[in-house]
Amino acid sequence: MRLFAFAGGEAGQWEVTALRAVAGEMLPATPRVEVHAVPASAQVAGARWILHGITSNERYVERSEHAALVALQPPLGRPEATRAALIPIRKSAAWWALSQDERREIFEARSRHIAVGLRYLPAIARRLHHCRDLGGAEPFDFLTWFEYAPSYERAFEDLVAALRASEEWRYVEREVDLRLARAR
Amino acid sequence: MRLFAFAGGEAGQWEVTALRAVAGEMLPATPRVEVHAVPASAQVAGARWILHGITSNERYVERSEHAALVALQPPLGRPEATRAALIPIRKSAAWWALSQDERREIFEARSRHIAVGLRYLPAIARRLHHCRDLGGAEPFDFLTWFEYAPSYERAFEDLVAALRASEEWRYVEREVDLRLARAR
Repeated sequence: MRLFAFAGGEAGQWEVTALRAVAGEMLPATPRVEVHAVPASAQVAGARWILHGITSNERYVERSEHAALVALQPPLGRPEATRAALIPIRKSAAWWALSQDERREIFEARSRHIAVGLRYLPAIARRLHHCRDLGGAEPFDFLTWFEYAPSYERAFEDLVAALRASEEWRYVEREVDLRLARAR
Repeated sequence: MRLFAFAGGEAGQWEVTALRAVAGEMLPATPRVEVHAVPASAQVAGARWILHGITSNERYVERSEHAALVALQPPLGRPEATRAALIPIRKSAAWWALSQDERREIFEARSRHIAVGLRYLPAIARRLHHCRDLGGAEPFDFLTWFEYAPSYERAFEDLVAALRASEEWRYVEREVDLRLARAR
């Protein structure tokens, strides 16, 4: 299964430690977040909000970049990775109206999205979920989930700061930043 | 709305005039097909099969190609365009494992998918729907809908023959070809 649901509510494996709107509307604050592989509708019942996303083929990564990523990317679920972040974003209509070559140019040649991410591997594990073409009324285009050890919290701040300073981020019209700690 | 449902059954605006499996499993034969903008669940009830697809941003088209397409692409629904085709395809896991640059190279540099399509504009109108990331269990990756006047039936055969002879089509593991005429 490639479809996941991120549910904010009273229950869940992840405690919310920080939550803020970086751009646009906030998500309702909840004490916990649970990550479900779908279908898991019974478990998701009772959530305050549910965001769906699906893993998919890479949209901008070229072969040499793919090889570099695969060589360094750690899996999710490492025991030491007790910190997580969920960063839902929505990009503007102007972004989606760009052609493939224009989006790639902004994404990597000018914003270095892949190169920046590579600098933080293998410390920070990441899974990207697409929402824009799910067919429902999902409020975001992408949900990115990150996991890392507490000693890499500062590195994670540097990573998101670098991306937010990029030209690509001028096309982000809504962004929420949730920080989480694995509940004991 | 970007989400559409193609429903095969007893009712619908389009009469099925031909139906065959080009690769892989066939779809059940039905006398009619209806095209619904979703949500239209009440109308879709009673169909023998329903295929969903969503229009989305372009994945391979570059800016100069986009400009050429936009200049020539006709709309759907022209009164003289009484013939249609619905061609659902599914690509292989090998295709989806390719990187963006590798897929673009096969799609255009070696298979001339965009250039071939341009030769048949403005005669043949086209709308591409994506299914792979809808999150359900859609049996195809893409649904392409074409509309053209009866005088362009031969041109349409040439178009699909050119694409099926391309390197890109080696990655097509399921393809059904439905030809339709607008019911009077």
